[in-house]
Amino acid sequence: MQQISLAHGEGGELTHQLIRDIFIQSFGHIEQTKFDSAILPIPTQTIAVTTDSYVVKPIFFPGGNIGNLAITGTVNDLAVSGATPHVITAGFIIEEGFPIESLKEIVNTMAGEAEKAKVNIVAGDTKVVEKGSVDGLFINTTGIGFLQEQHRLTPEMIQEGDAVIVSGTVGDHGVAILSARQELGLLTDVKSDCASLNDMIHGLTEEIKGVRIMRDPTRGGLATTLVELCEDFHFTIEVNEKFIPIRGDVQGACDILGYDPLYLANEGKVVMIVDSNDKQKALEILRSHEIGKDASVIGQITARHNHPGRLLLKTPVGTTRGLDRLSGQLLPRIC
Amino acid sequence: MQQISLAHGEGGELTHQLIRDIFIQSFGHIEQTKFDSAILPIPTQTIAVTTDSYVVKPIFFPGGNIGNLAITGTVNDLAVSGATPHVITAGFIIEEGFPIESLKEIVNTMAGEAEKAKVNIVAGDTKVVEKGSVDGLFINTTGIGFLQEQHRLTPEMIQEGDAVIVSGTVGDHGVAILSARQELGLLTDVKSDCASLNDMIHGLTEEIKGVRIMRDPTRGGLATTLVELCEDFHFTIEVNEKFIPIRGDVQGACDILGYDPLYLANEGKVVMIVDSNDKQKALEILRSHEIGKDASVIGQITARHNHPGRLLLKTPVGTTRGLDRLSGQLLPRIC
Repeated sequence: MQQISLAHGEGGELTHQLIRDIFIQSFGHIEQTKFDSAILPIPTQTIAVTTDSYVVKPIFFPGGNIGNLAITGTVNDLAVSGATPHVITAGFIIEEGFPIESLKEIVNTMAGEAEKAKVNIVAGDTKVVEKGSVDGLFINTTGIGFLQEQHRLTPEMIQEGDAVIVSGTVGDHGVAILSARQELGLLTDVKSDCASLNDMIHGLTEEIKGVRIMRDPTRGGLATTLVELCEDFHFTIEVNEKFIPIRGDVQGACDILGYDPLYLANEGKVVMIVDSNDKQKALEILRSHEIGKDASVIGQITARHNHPGRLLLKTPVGTTRGLDRLSGQLLPRIC
Repeated sequence: MQQISLAHGEGGELTHQLIRDIFIQSFGHIEQTKFDSAILPIPTQTIAVTTDSYVVKPIFFPGGNIGNLAITGTVNDLAVSGATPHVITAGFIIEEGFPIESLKEIVNTMAGEAEKAKVNIVAGDTKVVEKGSVDGLFINTTGIGFLQEQHRLTPEMIQEGDAVIVSGTVGDHGVAILSARQELGLLTDVKSDCASLNDMIHGLTEEIKGVRIMRDPTRGGLATTLVELCEDFHFTIEVNEKFIPIRGDVQGACDILGYDPLYLANEGKVVMIVDSNDKQKALEILRSHEIGKDASVIGQITARHNHPGRLLLKTPVGTTRGLDRLSGQLLPRIC
């Protein structure tokens, strides 16, 4: 089995071969420039920029691997900002001894997901560190998107009665990773929901003007994401627990393991505040898309404030309780 | 001593505090946006994009730490592409147990270098992994620069007789890192040359139209960088060894340790091909800058080809030999 050696990261002949035989082979565009940077024409006057490092453990899991996760995560951060994802950079930190076949598979998965999401990988970097200095492979992706006026989000328009919509079941990615670790002796069929949201979101914002704000509920899960929205934009949300879509096997795994699916990471879901006049149309559009078929209105804005607001959860038995952001350790290296 | 815990990377309350108390404190601009991406106006129709991960060992070394290295490295990749560096994203991967004081110092150093280089850090990401899963701290920076027509490089104009200029002494960073490791019992006063080149390069391309192409000779050193230029742009360079500026103590350390300073990384140097009519003026401008005071014309283009060219070195005894790119392991984790 061929393995990555320290020399692959030295900037010399082996680095050159690695870039040519693996990265250019899969990504095409990368490193084709003869400058030290990729040079890109920009069709808009405004861009969106986001960065994320991926340290998921294990690197391969049901529903994907670190490669598609690194593409979808960054594509989604751009898409939920109202931007059209355009290009991505990829920085690899690889442990000496990492199997070259695994690297090829990951790079191929990235290339496939980038093609699906219609983004180009335009610049890259590879570092190799000694055995024991990194756990296998970490990837950073940074994304640049174009902002077009007609897709601009309107958080300043948020008002009482606006609907809170989530595009599908929550907690799938978290449970898939837990299951892949088998640390807890848990084996389920749950796959990660890892998916690029930009096509679905583009369809939505083309049709509907009432999308106020969007977020993708990754680390910290749906609950933390909603708490942050309440704090950032000064409103109170009341969410009705019975409308939150959760797969039976995800809920079951959480019950056994003592996790709350509202705090588990998702990698292919969007939560949004939408003008109540647009909520039916929004649901229809989301549900017409394969990755949005379980979309649901889960709650509404009940008050605006001039101070950070709160997230309230109405339980099936009729009581209401406040939810806080995730506190303390839950699931390291979930993404 | 306060330490980073896994919970600092969970996306919950402690992540929130870390971002507020360390990153926003130093970087100001970062994460101020209420979207998942930073939103930026773009004044040009073309941008340059580059990405690099920094895994330098040790994290603190004479002349700097991983923080200023991560800024200057990315600023320099933009600057040598003829772009004006504008914004940077920063992705941190931190080992559980890493001292919070050290993180603060690194982040402060980054902020200071970013201010000097006149770039804003606009987006960030923090991941924490278990003890033993990463060696201390790795940083990815991705940079975006603006390309203005008047600073465009002109590699298509390269011709016989063009001068090869290096902006200062080579090998300093490599020897500084070796010395900091003390692995080899070597202690010298050599500091890393780690510095942002954009101000000096901007001054040069404002005044001189004959700058054909630039590179910063980092991993692989001056020799590998020149070999790549010869291969990418199809010309032969003849470099005169006696004109290559090398500090006496750097040469001395290399002699003892068996390294060739031409293959050691630099982090504050630029090598460029310049129209021979402009070479005197270019030297003057470079030397008028603190970090360019040792600039030297080290050689020239001796032939153009329709195939990849070669790098030739004229030695002090009058012989000429071909140089190849760095091959095999030399110095892992030099940047």
